Amino acid sequence: MGDDLAARLRALEDREAIRELIAQYGPAADTGDAEAVAGLWTCDGVYQVHGFAEARGHAAIAALIAGPVHQALLADGCAHVLGPVAITLDGDHATARGHSLVLRWTGQGFELHRVAANRWELARTAQGWRATRRDNALLQGDEAARAMLSAGCVIG
Amino acid sequence: MGDDLAARLRALEDREAIRELIAQYGPAADTGDAEAVAGLWTCDGVYQVHGFAEARGHAAIAALIAGPVHQALLADGCAHVLGPVAITLDGDHATARGHSLVLRWTGQGFELHRVAANRWELARTAQGWRATRRDNALLQGDEAARAMLSAGCVIG
Amino acid sequence: MGDDLAARLRALEDREAIRELIAQYGPAADTGDAEAVAGLWTCDGVYQVHGFAEARGHAAIAALIAGPVHQALLADGCAHVLGPVAITLDGDHATARGHSLVLRWTGQGFELHRVAANRWELARTAQGWRATRRDNALLQGDEAARAMLSAGCVIG
Repeated sequence: MGDDLAARLRALEDREAIRELIAQYGPAADTGDAEAVAGLWTCDGVYQVHGFAEARGHAAIAALIAGPVHQALLADGCAHVLGPVAITLDGDHATARGHSLVLRWTGQGFELHRVAANRWELARTAQGWRATRRDNALLQGDEAARAMLSAGCVIG
Repeated sequence: MGDDLAARLRALEDREAIRELIAQYGPAADTGDAEAVAGLWTCDGVYQVHGFAEARGHAAIAALIAGPVHQALLADGCAHVLGPVAITLDGDHATARGHSLVLRWTGQGFELHRVAANRWELARTAQGWRATRRDNALLQGDEAARAMLSAGCVIG
Repeated sequence: MGDDLAARLRALEDREAIRELIAQYGPAADTGDAEAVAGLWTCDGVYQVHGFAEARGHAAIAALIAGPVHQALLADGCAHVLGPVAITLDGDHATARGHSLVLRWTGQGFELHRVAANRWELARTAQGWRATRRDNALLQGDEAARAMLSAGCVIG
C-alpha cells in the first residue's frame, strides 16, 4: 500500500512538473529570457515552428528568442498564452497536446497574431522533466497542423 | 494517518482527472475526432450549446463534431481553447466552471469566433470521471450565460 | 518515508490550491460577484491594475467589480480568461506568473479588450491560500509590464 501510494503520488508529481514546465514558456518568452526558454528543453531538444524554423539544442532555441522576429514582437507588446495541455504519461516519457496563442499590440488594439497547435514530447531527466521536442503549427485549415493535437499522432 | 493521506491523494487525483478530461476537449474537437469528443461524456451525457443545439448521448454529441458547422470550422482553421477551470469536488460528483474560446482563421487573420461561459457537471464512473452535462453559452451581455460561471448556479 | 510522502503531498496540495484560487478569478469577475473576487485576497491584499487603479483590502477590491468600468464590461458581455500560471512555492508563500485576457463583445464581434501580464504574490492563511498582491499591466511593449512575468522579478 505504501508503494502504491508512492507510485500514485509520483504520477501526480510528474503531471504537475510537466504542466509547470509548459506554463513557464509564456512568461519566459514574453520577458525575452532566451536562456530560460531554452532551458525548458533537453540539451539536444528540438523546437520546430512549422513553416518558420527548426531549432535544435539550447543555443538554437535561445537564438529564436534573441532573434529579430521575437524581438520585434516584444517591442510591439506581445503575450504568448498557452491553453491547457492534455498530458499522456508513459514512465519516463510523456506527450502534451494543446494550443498556443501569440497576441500582439498593434498600437491601436490587440490582435491574434498566431493561433497554433502544439505537441510536446517530454522526458524525465536528472534535472526534472524537459521537452525533447515541440512542434508548433498554425491552425489555418491545414490537416497536418490539426493532426498534431491528435492523441495517436506521431510526428516524424 | 495512512487513510488520511490516501483520501488527500485521491482528492488530488480526482481534480487532476477532471482537469485532464476537460483539457482533452480542445485537441479532440480540433482534430475532428467525434468519438473522442463524445467519450468525454457519460453515455447519456448532455452537451447543450445554448441557442444552437442540445445533444444527449454519444451519438448526438459525435454528430455535432461530424456536422456541417464544426466541419466548416475545421476546414477554415480553428482552435477550441479552454481557460482554466474552477473545480468543486463533492464525492463522486463535481462541477467545473470556465471559459471557452473558438478562434477561426478567416483567410486573412484569426478572429474570436465564440467566447463562451461553460459549466461542466461531472461524475465518477467505472471508466473514470466523465461529463454528465456541459452548458455553453456566448458571453454577449446575457445574464443567464454569465450565471453559468457562478459557484452557486444550478442549471435546470 | 511517511513524513516525506506527507510533505510531497502537501506541496502538490499547495500548488493545486493556488491554481484553483486563481482559476476562480475569471468566473467570479464575469458573474460580477464582488465578494467572491475580493475573497481571493487576504484582508489587506492589494490588486494593482497599473495605469488604472490600486485597490487595497476587500472593500476596495470589491469596489473595482461593483464600479462603472467593470459593470459596463458585464453589460456589454465579457470574459476574463487567465492563462496557465507558473507557480513558485516557498513554504507559506508563493508567486504565480501568467497572462490574463479580457475579451469584450462589441455588439458585432468579440475583441481583445485587454492583454496583460500578471504577477500574484500569495500566502498560506488559516482559511487557505490567498493573494496578498496581484499586479496586472497591459503588454503594449512596456518593459515594466514584461518584467512582471520574470521569475526573478520583485515588484515594490
